[in-house]
Amino acid sequence: MSLKEIGEFGFIKKISRGCLIRPENIVKAIGDDAAAFRSDPDQLALITTDLLVERIHFLRDAISGFDLGYKSLAVNLSDIAAMGGTAREAFVSIAIPDDCQLNYLDDIYDGIKDLAAEFDVNVLGGDTTRSKIDLIINIVVQGIVPSTELLCRDAARPSDVIYSTGFLGDSKAGLHLILNQITADAEGLTSLLKAHNRPYPHLNEGRFLARQPGVRAAIDTSDGLSSDLGHIAEESKVGARLYADKIPISPNLRDFCDRFGFDPVDYALSGGEDYTLLCTISPERAEEIANAFEKEFKRPLFAIGEITVAKQFTLIYPDGRTKPIAPTGWDHFKAKENE
Amino acid sequence: MSLKEIGEFGFIKKISRGCLIRPENIVKAIGDDAAAFRSDPDQLALITTDLLVERIHFLRDAISGFDLGYKSLAVNLSDIAAMGGTAREAFVSIAIPDDCQLNYLDDIYDGIKDLAAEFDVNVLGGDTTRSKIDLIINIVVQGIVPSTELLCRDAARPSDVIYSTGFLGDSKAGLHLILNQITADAEGLTSLLKAHNRPYPHLNEGRFLARQPGVRAAIDTSDGLSSDLGHIAEESKVGARLYADKIPISPNLRDFCDRFGFDPVDYALSGGEDYTLLCTISPERAEEIANAFEKEFKRPLFAIGEITVAKQFTLIYPDGRTKPIAPTGWDHFKAKENE
Repeated sequence: MSLKEIGEFGFIKKISRGCLIRPENIVKAIGDDAAAFRSDPDQLALITTDLLVERIHFLRDAISGFDLGYKSLAVNLSDIAAMGGTAREAFVSIAIPDDCQLNYLDDIYDGIKDLAAEFDVNVLGGDTTRSKIDLIINIVVQGIVPSTELLCRDAARPSDVIYSTGFLGDSKAGLHLILNQITADAEGLTSLLKAHNRPYPHLNEGRFLARQPGVRAAIDTSDGLSSDLGHIAEESKVGARLYADKIPISPNLRDFCDRFGFDPVDYALSGGEDYTLLCTISPERAEEIANAFEKEFKRPLFAIGEITVAKQFTLIYPDGRTKPIAPTGWDHFKAKENE
Repeated sequence: MSLKEIGEFGFIKKISRGCLIRPENIVKAIGDDAAAFRSDPDQLALITTDLLVERIHFLRDAISGFDLGYKSLAVNLSDIAAMGGTAREAFVSIAIPDDCQLNYLDDIYDGIKDLAAEFDVNVLGGDTTRSKIDLIINIVVQGIVPSTELLCRDAARPSDVIYSTGFLGDSKAGLHLILNQITADAEGLTSLLKAHNRPYPHLNEGRFLARQPGVRAAIDTSDGLSSDLGHIAEESKVGARLYADKIPISPNLRDFCDRFGFDPVDYALSGGEDYTLLCTISPERAEEIANAFEKEFKRPLFAIGEITVAKQFTLIYPDGRTKPIAPTGWDHFKAKENE
């Protein structure tokens, strides 16, 4: 059996066996956005880590050092956000090829420190080494969350309303511009590029949601709406229906899709790296929490569908047509070469 | 200014600026074997991370998957050992090139889990992704240590006796065999290979030492005796004298050096990746602790020299000759291509 056959998530399942040998005090092991374990009576420690490899996750000549550093930290902060936590300490490991300029490296660390300072995160260590060809960055973030406020993927229940904390699909559009070397000749395109290169982690949104009774499951949109919601559905043993006309599409993505001939809903469903949060909220509390969110953040919490008992995943169009959704987001090993 | 000019440690100093923005409860930030921060009133959390890159740290066809996994975790456990801590949770990130076989990957995780189980460490997460060419492994280990027992690099004082918890130079000899494709045709050579490919982390030794009042500074020998003792000297603002005839050379290394014409003391001074612990102990307590160590571990704690007020680093031969020691261990960016 090859890695491509079993895929990233099959591989993760395979290697997970025998990993948890001392289960006491471990609340979440492999399989959520971050691991969670008890660090004191009222609090859980969270740890997450992301490995970014040149030519897989980024092209060095298509992203500034600052943005690369910023994004490398952002994707980790987003995982802490998805658990409802506060980010505390970061660790930056980097493997540097000989052709990488010191200026570019300085910019990477400036980008990391800029975002770290915004969220009061220390950079406490890491590792520095050489690489033969590709620049490699691995960031680890440690965070904390009150024990009673942890948000997990496996807590969704039928009838929960599904929300996104922001627009979906913008990052994929930005990636399309980069891969096809399309010049961002309008402000809207520049915004899409920025959505891809400098995603803003929804830590404040995550904390806000975690504090509200009634918010159940959460995940960040790193692999894509269909894949990430699929993780919630699988872990919670439920299904979901999404409303095509409720999926939040930014005006910029709409313009982009008009211009380049794409379907924006497909883009939102399959596009990864938006780093919004998806969450499910009990129907009794849903509207109240959405209103409070809008008051707090001056933008909507987008209701996009509901959790269902039936373990299916359906897209419903305004005219009543339905379409089964397959998880079309990112699987690193099954994915074809489209970076 | 280029990276080669400033070197790994110059680069670390440069990037360290502005990293600590919330200093409360942070006991050790960048610059020791692991970061240490307060997690509860009596205890510190430790976090360390190491990035291993194919063709820089290992050759895939020269190390088994099992040994590679084992070693990737061992180098992190060794950092926790050097802080006097107990290792608790591990996180494994891996970037996999297309030509890497699933069997080899399984072996990597078997090696990790084997060592993790021995030291009661959970594997709680990580990241899995693709790589274009090189296999990359980043492991993070979280540990704990009682607040009063933390061992740091900056605590050595003049007249402290310097000790090593094991033989030095074996790993470099193993690397020599690998790089020169010399067949291990004798048991001694096989042991040297094993010292390089499957280093045993001195976690029990570190905990033992951390509990003894009088043990001051500690570090693990990852870069090499001269470099690693240099870190203690620099951080503690002291110097050191080492006795050439007291540096612990294994019988296997002695045979190897006889056969291939090397000086074993040079090998021990410059050879990295032994992963023994170096520690300094106050002279009043030194002998007693060394005796207790030998009783506990059935092998000696090797006294190799003393800490001095003068910020120099001197090797003393049995005939009274002295030689200044330059840190000749590993600097990833200054190092010439000798992997």
